[in-house]
Amino acid sequence: MGSTYRAVEVSTPGVLRVVERPISKPAAGQVRLRVEACGVCHSDLATVQGDYPGLKLPRVPGHEVVGRIEEIGPNVSKWKIGQRVGVGFLGGQDGECEPCLRGDFANCLNPVISGITTDGGYAEVMIAEARALASIPDELTSADAAPLLCAGITTFNALRNAGLRAGDLVGIQGIGGLGHLGVQFARRMGFRIVAINNGPEKSDLAKKLGAHFYVDAAAEDVAAALQRMGGAKAILATAPSGKAIAALVPALAVCGKLIVVGVAPDAIEVSSPSLVFGQRSIYGSLTGSAIDTQDTLAFSVLQEVRPMIETLPLDKAPEAFARMMDGKARFRMVLVMKNGAEVSAV
Amino acid sequence: MGSTYRAVEVSTPGVLRVVERPISKPAAGQVRLRVEACGVCHSDLATVQGDYPGLKLPRVPGHEVVGRIEEIGPNVSKWKIGQRVGVGFLGGQDGECEPCLRGDFANCLNPVISGITTDGGYAEVMIAEARALASIPDELTSADAAPLLCAGITTFNALRNAGLRAGDLVGIQGIGGLGHLGVQFARRMGFRIVAINNGPEKSDLAKKLGAHFYVDAAAEDVAAALQRMGGAKAILATAPSGKAIAALVPALAVCGKLIVVGVAPDAIEVSSPSLVFGQRSIYGSLTGSAIDTQDTLAFSVLQEVRPMIETLPLDKAPEAFARMMDGKARFRMVLVMKNGAEVSAV
Amino acid sequence: MGSTYRAVEVSTPGVLRVVERPISKPAAGQVRLRVEACGVCHSDLATVQGDYPGLKLPRVPGHEVVGRIEEIGPNVSKWKIGQRVGVGFLGGQDGECEPCLRGDFANCLNPVISGITTDGGYAEVMIAEARALASIPDELTSADAAPLLCAGITTFNALRNAGLRAGDLVGIQGIGGLGHLGVQFARRMGFRIVAINNGPEKSDLAKKLGAHFYVDAAAEDVAAALQRMGGAKAILATAPSGKAIAALVPALAVCGKLIVVGVAPDAIEVSSPSLVFGQRSIYGSLTGSAIDTQDTLAFSVLQEVRPMIETLPLDKAPEAFARMMDGKARFRMVLVMKNGAEVSAV
Amino acid sequence: MGSTYRAVEVSTPGVLRVVERPISKPAAGQVRLRVEACGVCHSDLATVQGDYPGLKLPRVPGHEVVGRIEEIGPNVSKWKIGQRVGVGFLGGQDGECEPCLRGDFANCLNPVISGITTDGGYAEVMIAEARALASIPDELTSADAAPLLCAGITTFNALRNAGLRAGDLVGIQGIGGLGHLGVQFARRMGFRIVAINNGPEKSDLAKKLGAHFYVDAAAEDVAAALQRMGGAKAILATAPSGKAIAALVPALAVCGKLIVVGVAPDAIEVSSPSLVFGQRSIYGSLTGSAIDTQDTLAFSVLQEVRPMIETLPLDKAPEAFARMMDGKARFRMVLVMKNGAEVSAV
Repeated sequence: MGSTYRAVEVSTPGVLRVVERPISKPAAGQVRLRVEACGVCHSDLATVQGDYPGLKLPRVPGHEVVGRIEEIGPNVSKWKIGQRVGVGFLGGQDGECEPCLRGDFANCLNPVISGITTDGGYAEVMIAEARALASIPDELTSADAAPLLCAGITTFNALRNAGLRAGDLVGIQGIGGLGHLGVQFARRMGFRIVAINNGPEKSDLAKKLGAHFYVDAAAEDVAAALQRMGGAKAILATAPSGKAIAALVPALAVCGKLIVVGVAPDAIEVSSPSLVFGQRSIYGSLTGSAIDTQDTLAFSVLQEVRPMIETLPLDKAPEAFARMMDGKARFRMVLVMKNGAEVSAV
Repeated sequence: MGSTYRAVEVSTPGVLRVVERPISKPAAGQVRLRVEACGVCHSDLATVQGDYPGLKLPRVPGHEVVGRIEEIGPNVSKWKIGQRVGVGFLGGQDGECEPCLRGDFANCLNPVISGITTDGGYAEVMIAEARALASIPDELTSADAAPLLCAGITTFNALRNAGLRAGDLVGIQGIGGLGHLGVQFARRMGFRIVAINNGPEKSDLAKKLGAHFYVDAAAEDVAAALQRMGGAKAILATAPSGKAIAALVPALAVCGKLIVVGVAPDAIEVSSPSLVFGQRSIYGSLTGSAIDTQDTLAFSVLQEVRPMIETLPLDKAPEAFARMMDGKARFRMVLVMKNGAEVSAV
Repeated sequence: MGSTYRAVEVSTPGVLRVVERPISKPAAGQVRLRVEACGVCHSDLATVQGDYPGLKLPRVPGHEVVGRIEEIGPNVSKWKIGQRVGVGFLGGQDGECEPCLRGDFANCLNPVISGITTDGGYAEVMIAEARALASIPDELTSADAAPLLCAGITTFNALRNAGLRAGDLVGIQGIGGLGHLGVQFARRMGFRIVAINNGPEKSDLAKKLGAHFYVDAAAEDVAAALQRMGGAKAILATAPSGKAIAALVPALAVCGKLIVVGVAPDAIEVSSPSLVFGQRSIYGSLTGSAIDTQDTLAFSVLQEVRPMIETLPLDKAPEAFARMMDGKARFRMVLVMKNGAEVSAV
Repeated sequence: MGSTYRAVEVSTPGVLRVVERPISKPAAGQVRLRVEACGVCHSDLATVQGDYPGLKLPRVPGHEVVGRIEEIGPNVSKWKIGQRVGVGFLGGQDGECEPCLRGDFANCLNPVISGITTDGGYAEVMIAEARALASIPDELTSADAAPLLCAGITTFNALRNAGLRAGDLVGIQGIGGLGHLGVQFARRMGFRIVAINNGPEKSDLAKKLGAHFYVDAAAEDVAAALQRMGGAKAILATAPSGKAIAALVPALAVCGKLIVVGVAPDAIEVSSPSLVFGQRSIYGSLTGSAIDTQDTLAFSVLQEVRPMIETLPLDKAPEAFARMMDGKARFRMVLVMKNGAEVSAV
């Protein structure tokens, strides 16, 4: 294993660079992972651009990390060396802020965030907080498990926590890294699903993933199309565009909910009558806690949800990132480390 | 009683004019009211301007109507001549649309709307749908009851349906016709209340009505002020300004809710991170059904909530409307008909 | 069609008898159906025994009725002659009681109940309230649709209204007329499902219907078995035995819910610590409204839920009823009228 | 302060005995309190009788403990020596079980329980877990604060978490240690309150505390009385009698909730039709977490809720306990330590 590891870090905004780093020991409450796979998420852009509030460079991005525990720090009792585990965006709640005291760890006010406040998974090795880990089920390869740790939990949690009922018409806007999982989760929750994306290309794929309907937002009036179906009880908006998100409000049924999970550069402009007449709502949903991750993985195994991925070796991280940003990934880029690429599911 | 009645109608957009009209008989399912009092609401503007979608002039505004039943149409069994009753914004659900079939009458897709689809209460006489009526408790004068039928139910329902818990920090933005009732309702529901308004003038009054804190939005950063108190679990936004409403999002606590009850001319511009990080929400809330009105009145009697009103006779409707629009009313203008002004509570 | 129809009525408690009756005209708000199929439900026992409070004999049982509209009474605008429709247990809400005014039609205090307050579907002809009808989708045969009108809606509504989340462990107790549908619905809502029944016989069938696990309550300690799986977030109790229902409380997870849909002759005896330590709950759930029925049918079509039925002609109603009471039905007895047996799905 | 302290312990079931004990040092994560006041709760019976599962004698009862921190163990950063703090029934969640991982600390599967798994507050000194502490507001005396730590939080949390709406009819059954606080909390949450107790004696007091109505359960049929008022949306059952609790089910409105917070020796016998027809529920509610305690104290200060107490010195613990068991306390017995009796609120 040697005393150094390769990582892909951002030291200059906009540049991903392969570096060699010394391996360090996990502190109290931490473990060190030998990374097997790491998904490439649109939110990694905040690290690559270096503009996340408080971010300090150099920093290794990556918050869809699967690896094996190779060393355990003090005061960690639950985990064992050799276990295959995952860590997502929430790298550890502080346990002391008001949301944490109320048990709402996902909204911790001072969280460890993988790849932002601490080095992430674009690397052969990563230090992680033990309390943030989830165990990876044997049924999942490391590469398949990785996207479930952010894209998966984000869409799974948003959908299961939305107070929806089986049979409800649910829109999934944006058929990409998040949306292609959202369609699968939604289908297995018993919803009537309409996939919404620009262009006709993804129609067949969306239906194969479970969508009952497909609306080409570039060709059709989304609001009119969904209102013809009765209006959506909820739309999961995954595309990072305030303008596109705002256009979804009139596609909602009475009491419909627009769930925003992506961070858009532009504002969402909503008219108050569109909210008031029909009691519509817009709200944000953000990842989840360690046990939510565990639930996401268990559900994916039980109900046979799998991400569609393209894998590249760690050194090709810049290429993987660019391909994701260009919208070319079908649907999630996953970096696989040498050992990860070879490892069997179990 | 004669065969005609006086009413204040809009036949030319922008102009309220006193006219004499023939009295007609209530159709099946309707009653005719001898109006005693009618509140003047900011939403009457839609009628006065003549720009509500589908509105046909001439039209009598007014949807905070208290009167006595003087004639009952066919197929009405529940009500009796002489009963004092009220009707608000929702003048009758259609009972056939999907929200109605689901029991959500307030969101009826084809509602009778008092003063918009049918003539309202700026008049000595009004025809109302029996299914929209609420009985006025003896403890309330007609003039006091009137504002509870729209300003009251709107704030009461928004607050009681928000899923809040006693002790939560709740903001009431806009201390006017709606807000001054919202503060009273919120206080009696056990919340910790912060009133928010432009200027220092309403501070004492807001506290007298039940607010624990007052924030002058013209002098202070509302978001900073409320975050110092822990962040609001909910803010009831009553001021018709998209810009002012948008400024309240960062004043919310984690999982906080911004409840919009007023219709603003400008858009609400929200940034997606302010929703996603902290799982905040914005949603609209709209009046309520007949039994919600009944609940509002019962709660007001039980908990001693009363509107602060200024009364004017029917002929002064233009003056009352102008005073309301100028923000001079303390806090609700109520038109009282001759008989109404004299009538005792019971 | 003649001026009479055959029906199976109860005039002496305990005896089902085929009679000839004159056809009558539907009153205002009603339609007359030419019945095609009617399910046989355990609740029909209340009619057969003649002991439902207020029941007057003779009475025709049957509240899972599918038929075609052959005559329409006054004041019915929504339906047309020839339409295939269904009516379930709730034969019509009164629209005037407090639950109805709150939109909670299923809990109407003065409902029409098919087969109890009015003659039901063990007949060639039935008069039904138009407001209680649901349209039968073309994809369903009349015989397949019938059980969905009570057994279906009861389990579908109970499950979708329970506030559960996808992936939750859900128990279905009693794999019979209700339970065999409950398993199918639950599976399509994304739950982890454990079927619970006395004896090993139904294990394979339950799994074929969608159960992930099967517990033989005659051979195993149900509470221990379910606690080994993590405890059930909800158990749908369909077996009419207070003793069996009570035994399910300790099988619940923390905050788990025991949903009772069957009427048992004996009391449910619960210890308060089993509720308090773990915040467990027991509650009842009862059928649904007309649009809930419509939702049940739509979901069944969309997600391919079908009852397993055994059909018998109307004259064999006593045999069908006896077979159901003896627990021999696999899983629902359905009476099919001559025309019904021949009719195609559409 | 010396090296020993007096405590009242149970070493023989049924006997409370004053003993002298050596003072020990707080371990990691703990603090040592100089106790000022401790309430006497009916649940202390489990310790006195020695029959709580797993309880080991000798044990000091008491889980309504207010004291000042006099020594702080390792790894405690939040608290300071001299702070006045309280600890209730939940003496510390384990943080590792499934409910804890989901943020539901009150339902921890392996909790520290004050006075049961660890020595409680019938003593001059107590060791407490730092994570279980709440800060006592200056506005409350130690004697007044003590009952809020169990009787208070139990009723406050049960009421605020019940999904009730302002104006709902809420019953408080049992006007004793818990109920007299329940009435006060419920009143300040805006409910319409009916107090229910055996005998006419507590009627005036209940109304003084905030009840709108009083029903003497020994003289009246509770179910009939409450149904005349419209039926209770919720009843908080505080009396430890399964028979009395069961009698409350038919007093509930449609969808009404019976909230059980007391542990009764006998079973609650419920008929399934009483649950199914009307969708009624019964569920348990148990104390709360440290921040729930903080909320209870803050609400009590803000809304002027105070327990009615009788104080006795520590040595009179046996007398205080007997008086509570005999139902003579008006309404909560509180043991006050020498220093506690003298201390000012701040």
